[in-house]
This record gives sequence, structure tokens and C-alpha cells, in this order.
Amino acid sequence: MGKDKSAFNLKTPKGTRDWAGADTLLRDRIFNTIADVFRRHGGTALDTPVFELRDILAGKYGEDSKLIYDLQDQGGELCSLRYDLTVPFARWLAMNPEVRSIKRYHIAKVYRRDQPAVAKGRMREFYQCDFDIAGAQADPMVPDAEVLKIINEVFSGLGWDGRYTIKINHRKVLDGLFEVCGVPQDKIRPISSAVDKLDKLPWAEVRKEMVESKGLDPEAADKIETYVSKKGRKDLLQDLLKDEALMANASAKQGIEEMGLLMDYLEAFGVLESISFDLSLARGLDYYTGVIYEVVTEGSAPTVSTSAPEAQTLQKSGKKAKAATGDDDDRSNDPTIGVGSIAAGGRYDNLVGMFSPKAQIPCVGISFGVDRIFSITKARMERENNGNVRSSEVDVFVMAFGGKGFSGMLKERMEISKSLWNANIKAEFSYKLKPKPQQQFNAAESSGIPFAVILGEDELAAGQVKIKEMGLDKDHPEKEGVSVDIKNLVDEVKTRLARKASANTTPEAAAAGVANLTVNDENQ
Amino acid sequence: MGKDKSAFNLKTPKGTRDWAGADTLLRDRIFNTIADVFRRHGGTALDTPVFELRDILAGKYGEDSKLIYDLQDQGGELCSLRYDLTVPFARWLAMNPEVRSIKRYHIAKVYRRDQPAVAKGRMREFYQCDFDIAGAQADPMVPDAEVLKIINEVFSGLGWDGRYTIKINHRKVLDGLFEVCGVPQDKIRPISSAVDKLDKLPWAEVRKEMVESKGLDPEAADKIETYVSKKGRKDLLQDLLKDEALMANASAKQGIEEMGLLMDYLEAFGVLESISFDLSLARGLDYYTGVIYEVVTEGSAPTVSTSAPEAQTLQKSGKKAKAATGDDDDRSNDPTIGVGSIAAGGRYDNLVGMFSPKAQIPCVGISFGVDRIFSITKARMERENNGNVRSSEVDVFVMAFGGKGFSGMLKERMEISKSLWNANIKAEFSYKLKPKPQQQFNAAESSGIPFAVILGEDELAAGQVKIKEMGLDKDHPEKEGVSVDIKNLVDEVKTRLARKASANTTPEAAAAGVANLTVNDENQ
Repeated sequence: MGKDKSAFNLKTPKGTRDWAGADTLLRDRIFNTIADVFRRHGGTALDTPVFELRDILAGKYGEDSKLIYDLQDQGGELCSLRYDLTVPFARWLAMNPEVRSIKRYHIAKVYRRDQPAVAKGRMREFYQCDFDIAGAQADPMVPDAEVLKIINEVFSGLGWDGRYTIKINHRKVLDGLFEVCGVPQDKIRPISSAVDKLDKLPWAEVRKEMVESKGLDPEAADKIETYVSKKGRKDLLQDLLKDEALMANASAKQGIEEMGLLMDYLEAFGVLESISFDLSLARGLDYYTGVIYEVVTEGSAPTVSTSAPEAQTLQKSGKKAKAATGDDDDRSNDPTIGVGSIAAGGRYDNLVGMFSPKAQIPCVGISFGVDRIFSITKARMERENNGNVRSSEVDVFVMAFGGKGFSGMLKERMEISKSLWNANIKAEFSYKLKPKPQQQFNAAESSGIPFAVILGEDELAAGQVKIKEMGLDKDHPEKEGVSVDIKNLVDEVKTRLARKASANTTPEAAAAGVANLTVNDENQ
Repeated sequence: MGKDKSAFNLKTPKGTRDWAGADTLLRDRIFNTIADVFRRHGGTALDTPVFELRDILAGKYGEDSKLIYDLQDQGGELCSLRYDLTVPFARWLAMNPEVRSIKRYHIAKVYRRDQPAVAKGRMREFYQCDFDIAGAQADPMVPDAEVLKIINEVFSGLGWDGRYTIKINHRKVLDGLFEVCGVPQDKIRPISSAVDKLDKLPWAEVRKEMVESKGLDPEAADKIETYVSKKGRKDLLQDLLKDEALMANASAKQGIEEMGLLMDYLEAFGVLESISFDLSLARGLDYYTGVIYEVVTEGSAPTVSTSAPEAQTLQKSGKKAKAATGDDDDRSNDPTIGVGSIAAGGRYDNLVGMFSPKAQIPCVGISFGVDRIFSITKARMERENNGNVRSSEVDVFVMAFGGKGFSGMLKERMEISKSLWNANIKAEFSYKLKPKPQQQFNAAESSGIPFAVILGEDELAAGQVKIKEMGLDKDHPEKEGVSVDIKNLVDEVKTRLARKASANTTPEAAAAGVANLTVNDENQ
């Protein structure tokens, strides 16, 4: 983006960006794919204000609270920009006691005055796509299983089958496991934070942090290692059920039995193959009370290594601790900050009660990190289509040609455009009174518009116009276009658009739920 | 909404609201209708940050600048929340000099620290839906005509045919007219502001303001009256073309000729009947330089008189001048504040140049006041459908019944739900292991879900389930449901949904572009 030298500092604020052109089209298709899944499961949209009373946010984010954007005190209430979509949802539930159960989704921007890393897409303003199930009327693990089914449907809808893994664990299993290994109560959270880094650091370093920084008994650390290296599905579950030490711990026992129930349900939903029960998954946020999960994509990470954003919805407290108010960007190229997960969530049964003790409502939910999903999808599409993604969706350019003394036929172009619009066909025409033929072709080609409707004076007098498909080979029989009666124009255009759409839909685009994002393959 | 007595002040900030349930569904359908029209005309989405550098907004809104929300200075850049979507668009154009022409749309919230009037829907956080055409390559009035065609298509899409009028005028006609009437140059803006109040106040009061407050020669005021009482279409144009005094004024002459051109184009687009050339329309914002327009709806206003919001996108400076920082709500019930317009816009050729003199790009656009359109649509739907608007879109509730020792068939319900979801059918089931029949029926009925799929142990053993349409008359042949083979379930459900949808679509709903917002007419 160019920068004009003027009296104004022409830029967006640090850590924010404009979304324009093909990026926005692709991003909106991702939103639509995700929202379709949410609605299919009975989700209803909730839209809360972008700022909340400051007290609502206070005490919810631990040391990350310093990353909250405050509004200036201009008289009246003190407000702050939302930091996530979960706390506003909990506030809304507490405020509306008549709502005892709901499936709600919310797709919106959140704000974190974090140190941005623009190259990685870690921004101060970024999108979250959240789906949560609230309600006391559920039996254990039933809504939890549905949330995992939703994750599966979203990534299927995006065409990512086989390219992602849902890591799951259970807070009660973890807590019990730490107790069994001899971690003192007051060290359980810090040790859990250390374990949470195992997706980025080798065991030796994590162990060092546990023993040297956090003062854990080395023997306890070694016991932890025997557990947190375990991954699996029903096999791991069987191992744990046979582990007498673990099963003697009430918390671990409850967690393990719930994981068994969950796997049964995941089997019924047909999504057991997508998950990995991973005892090293800990998740940063304190408010989780049950099952927790993170979605990772391995194969796709290297190809977008320079532009892949962190899934910011999912940044872990530990990694943000150092970021603060300065305006320098020193960590932006730090390779030790990994790409992170592309979706994450879990069960949080106590958050609503923080607002209203009488309104204790158990919840379970998922947040998709759309910015990172976008970057990976875009990189993949560019790689597979030579980078030619259209920025416009227009299907027809209405043009007119004529010889000397040609009127330009503006009103006739307007009338033809009108009939196309009224038939719900996306159309444009030149705003010039007498546009040159080449100008009109260039306008259509540079936007990748697939069809031209061409008006000529003689043809129009005979009640006809020409439809020309752009970019046909020079020996194609319809290269010069086909004359049709004006009264059939709409049907003729629709037939050709349908034909073109089915021919143009790449399996990738179809699978990605972005079939309408047609590819401009005739010019750059 | 209930308020819980707790340590927290459980509310949204003053002048903001949550959008939930049926309101959100209806609002999203309105957004979709509008965005479909925008895209049909080649519009591409632009999404800018919710806050801008403070300097970007400075000097763009005159005395309304005091209504801008500032972010607190927490180190780094000084930022403010956007006040409209037009200035961020102009900033983006100035920043991206490679974009010389674009049709862009933007649907987003804007922020004004105005005195809220919640009963009228005048909020501090509210939505704007903007479409603008930028570009120097257009011949006069061609894009302007397309914007008016877009207004027409939006209100047609919303089912408002015959219920709205697009008032149009031209800044150059107005300026010339004031000159011809003897208004001194330095009084043209204040007199224009006074004229702008003619939609709310009788001429006598406006005249008084002109003469007594603004010191206009009474003779000039009387001359103005002869013009601003004029409305029409081509007839008014003919009158003005014959007005020698007016045609001798260069500004008026240019404006009148452009209005003639515009009407020709509106005729070609078939929308001349929707407009009213109204010499009393002045519009508050200073930056308009050519054609201006406002959409008013008369018939619908009285029915929503207590809840109709002002079209806030369109509030006129004069009316906001008194609103400021206090937290009292004294003007909220002031009946002299009218409901205002539901969409407004015009040509602004100099705004982009304020950011970058080299990037002078003429623009013309329209902003739809969605909050008010929503209120009117909602009131109309409630009136016509007895207020039964569903808050959920779910089509099928999967249930199971059984006798003593009944297992609850949870996994079977999960498997049936899975097959419905995988076929893109919206479905829910109870999260209880052993839900009672009545609980399941109540859950389906209270959400207005039209179909139940009922599992029974004997039927399932025979490979069958029952489909039951909810709320059928007791003597309807399918009252007790129809048994179908599980392998045909998806097709059987789809057939019934399609049949139900076509039967349920009221002409009103279809016309309103809200056909999918099915009406729950079997229970409240």
C-alpha cells in the first residue's frame, strides 16, 4: 500500500489493517462457511457492543488485563474495548436470567493492545468466530461432543479434511495427574503453564523450567514426563483406566470417565478419527473446568511460514506476558513464537457465576482463529491458481461498439444493465458517454469479468445483442460472440453463467466452500 | 431485560445494546438483502479498523467533532472510534493511489457520543450500510443515476415498493437559487441549514429563523419560499429551465442541466417514478458538492411512532448541535425531533483531496439507516403475523420415546442428527440421556421447530423412524407422523421442508426478502 506524503499520517493505527478486494471476498466466504455450520446446529447470533463497562472486563483476564484498550473518560461511564467474545457472552447470560440455555454464535473483532507482529498476522484488532452452548439441562459430555462435531464440520466445509487434528484433554485429568505426580496444590497452575509449552519447546527445556524456575521436585517432573508424552484415542483411555494411581485420584477418575463418555459420543458423531487425546495439552486460560481442545494443522504450516498469523484468539498468557505498551516491534520475527492453533476452546462452568452468583450456567465453546485460517487458505489458493484471485464478482460487462459518429448508446447500455440487475445478474457498464471498445474490454478483463454483452446499432435495431465469453481461444467457434434476441438475453446469460460455474469450480475451491470465488485465469 | 443485583453493574454502556434472537435474524436478512444489491452492482467489500488515528477524523465533522469517542492515551498513537464510514473510505482511497476507481460497500457500526434516545432507537453505537462509487473516469450523472437505481433495488428487495420516496436536489441548484434570491455568500450555509428543517417545521418558523436569527433580508426569504415549496419531476425541471433569473446564474444553470441529465438516466433505469425533485432538500453535511438525496417513508412512520428510531446515519448537524457529554436523557421524548430519513447520500468530490491533494477522486454514495429500516420492518411483520417471529432457524428436532426401562437412545439420536447435519439440515436433540417425551416436544414447540424425527426401539429395529410435522390439526391424516426408512430419511425431510417453506412464505415475507424467516404460527 502506497503512502502519500501529505499533512496527514496516512495509515491505519498500529496493529490494525484494512480488508479490501479479494482478501475480503475470501474472508467472507470463510465466515459464511463457519456461520452455516453454526446455524445448522441451532446457533443463533448474538451481537454485543464493541465496548463494555470497564468493570465487566476487570478481573477476567489475569495479567493480560493490561492489554485491554480503554476509552478516554469524556464524562459518563468508563468503558473499554472487548478483549474477547466470551466475557460479553457471559455478561449477557447473567443479564438475561430468562435465558437458561442457548446455542449462540458471534463473529466479530476483538481488541488487544499487544505487541503486534504484522508479518505473522498477529494484530491488535482481529476476528474471532465463537460458538458456545450454555445450559444446565445437559447430561455430561453431550454438548461437549457436539462442539467437537462442529469443529469437524467447519474444517470439512473449508476443505481441510485430513489436514488438521483436534487435540483434546480434560482439566480434571490434568489436575489429578499433577496431584498423583506429587505437584503441590499451589504449583499446579504454574506447572500446567509449563506443560502448555510442550508444543513449542522440547521436554528438556520444559523440565528445566519446572525444576529450576518453579522449584518442582525433579522426581515429580520425571513422573509428569511419563504422562504428558502420551497421545492416543481409545487406546490411551484404556491405559489410563488401568492406571491404579490415577484412578485412585477423584479428579483424575472423573476426568478419565468423562473422556470415555466423550469418545463414545464422538464415535456416534463419526468424528473420533479427527481427535487426538493428548495429555500435554493444558491451555492457558484459568476459567476452563472440563474438556479442553486446540486444533492444529501441521502440513500447511511451512508453506505460509512468513505470513502465517498466530491464531490470536488462542495466544497463551505466557507468551504475551512480556508484550506491553511500547511501540517497537522487536518480537515480530522471533522464530521461537510458533504459529499456534487455528481454533481452541473448552468447558467453563463458572464464568457466568462471576457476574451473577444466582445465574450459574455451565458453558462449553469453541473459538476459530479466522485470520490464520484465512492466511493458510489464501496461500493454498494462490499456490494452486497462480495467485489470480478475482477481487470482483461481476459476471457481465455491458458494452457498446459503433463506427464514426457513434452515440455511445449510454441509455441503451443502462436499459440492458437494468434488465440484468432486475434478474439478479451482477453487471457493470462504462460510466463514459462514448467509451472506446478497447477501454471497455480492458475494464472487463482487468476485473476478470467472464462475459461481455455487446450492443451495436444494427443489431439493436434487429432486437438483438451479442454475448461474448471473454478469453476464449482464437479458434473457438464462439470466439466472436453469439447474437441473441434481447427478449432472451437474461436466460441466455444465466445458461452460460451456470455452464461456466460448473466448469470453473476446482475441486479445491468446491471443497473449500469458496466455489463462487471464481478464478481469473485469463490475465493477471 | 432483567437486571441482576450483584456486585457488577450488569448493563451495556449507555446508548448501546445487545442484538439477540429474532431481532438479529431479521436484521441479518436486511443486511443480506442490501449487500446482495451492492454486489449485483459490482460492489466490493471494504472493512476498515473500528478506530482511526485521531488526526484522520479531525476537521471532517465540523462542530459534531465533539461527539467523537477518543481512546485513552495508553502510550503510542492517539486514536478515536470511527464516526462514519465515509471518512475511513476517503482515507483508504488516499492511501492506495493505485485504486483510481472502485465501487465499495461497507456494513459496520459507527460511534457517536450523542445524547441517546433509546425509545426512538437513536444510539451511540449503530449500523451504517454504505455504498459509494469513486472514480474520475465517469461522465456527469452516470454513477449518480446508478446509486439511485441501487436505492430503488434495495427498497424493492425489502418489499417497500410504493412506500418510500427518494427526495433529490442538487447543491449547485440550491447555491445558485440562494444567490439569485439575494442571500449574501457568507449566509448561504446558515440559510441552507434553515431550509433543511422544512421537513420538520412549517415555513413560517423557518422564515423566522432566517430573518430574525440569521439576519436575512425578508424580501430574500420570501423569494426563497417561492422556490423551496416546489416539488416535481420533469415538470419542475421544465419550470426551472424557463426561469431566466435562475438560468442566468452559472451554478444554478449547471445544476439544473445536470438534473435534466440525471432524469434521463433515471428513466432508462426505470426509477424516475420513485423520485421527487424537491428544492427544499438541503442536507446538513458540508462536503456534498452535487446531487443530494434522502429517502423518506411516510405511510410506515405512524405505526412505529413510539419505537421508531431516527435514521441516525442521517441526523442533521443542526439537530445534534445541542447534544453533548452529559448523561441525562432529556431530549429522548421530544416530539419535535422527527423520525428523519431512512437512507441519504450525495456527491462529494473534494473529500479524498483533503487527505491527499494529488489523489483528488470524485465520489458519490448512499448510506442506509438500517436501525430504522429494521424497526419499521419488525413492526410490520409483528402486526401482520401476530408477533410470532421465530428466534431459531432449526428445522428438525430429533427425539426418542420408549416405555419402562427405556435407554433414552442418546447415541441413536446422535447418529440420526449427524446424518441430518451432514445433509445440511438444521437439527437439534435433547442433551439429556433420558429425556421425557413431553420435554422433547416442549423444546421443539417453544423454538417453533416445524418437524420432529421420532425414534422408537421397535421401529429402529425395523430400520425406520417417524417424521411428524408439529402443530397439525388433530384430524389431519399425518397428525401422528409418518414412518419412513432411515435410508430415505434425509430425502423425506427435505421434501417436507420444501413443501412447508413454499406454503409458509407469506407474500409480505417474500417481498421483504425475509422468506426464510419462517413464522411460528402454532404457538406463542
